[in-house]
Amino acid sequence: MTGKSLRKTIQQMSQDPQRAQVMAADCPSRAVLGHITSRWGVLVLVMLLERTHRFSELRRAVAGVSEKMLAQTLEALAFDGLVLRVAHQVVPPHVEYSLTPLGREAAQRLEVLVDWIEENFPLIQQAQDAAALRAA
Amino acid sequence: MTGKSLRKTIQQMSQDPQRAQVMAADCPSRAVLGHITSRWGVLVLVMLLERTHRFSELRRAVAGVSEKMLAQTLEALAFDGLVLRVAHQVVPPHVEYSLTPLGREAAQRLEVLVDWIEENFPLIQQAQDAAALRAA
Repeated sequence: MTGKSLRKTIQQMSQDPQRAQVMAADCPSRAVLGHITSRWGVLVLVMLLERTHRFSELRRAVAGVSEKMLAQTLEALAFDGLVLRVAHQVVPPHVEYSLTPLGREAAQRLEVLVDWIEENFPLIQQAQDAAALRAA
Repeated sequence: MTGKSLRKTIQQMSQDPQRAQVMAADCPSRAVLGHITSRWGVLVLVMLLERTHRFSELRRAVAGVSEKMLAQTLEALAFDGLVLRVAHQVVPPHVEYSLTPLGREAAQRLEVLVDWIEENFPLIQQAQDAAALRAA
């Protein structure tokens, strides 16, 4: 895969001037990029790829997230139509979260990135150690 | 592609207990995920896929980024071995940034995500409009 060339971008814009452009400061697609790639958004979306989770299950699975941040993250992803929130009116009541078809597409792309980081982390750590030595 | 199953994760951990796990709160791979998916990290990496950029070029291309945030973003990505910083000792001096082979791999995966967001943004906006109507 080669980088997106300027020519390709110009071509896309002339074909579809309405297309979202995350490089433009005022394009509302930037907020969506922010939700999807937020600290907890990435981890929540990847966990939901596996299966539907209750709130408390997600909180345990995504180690370190606070109740407040998890609630905010899920709210933003539900607002974007990526996560579906279903409240079950049973005793005791509980709320389940799952991916919409759109959310599944986003989460699959994030999973590729997360897998790459986990696989290549030893190489990144080597680079960090070398950088720390140069700075010392 | 299906979600990463618990079985797959357990299998990976038993095969390679040293593998980085972004779901673990104390795994240092989380910091790298943070750099790569930071507000400006995503945009800088995707821009550098196209070609080497000078600092001032990057600042123009990634609309809205401040000088300080761009410098911090590039520093973190260079520390992780994803971006290469080369200072040219000419008159006037200038600094160029490019992707390392490792950075290119990360950026390609981010580009897939960014392209998906730009392409699917109309569907996300429809979902947002529907959510706003329900909340009203």
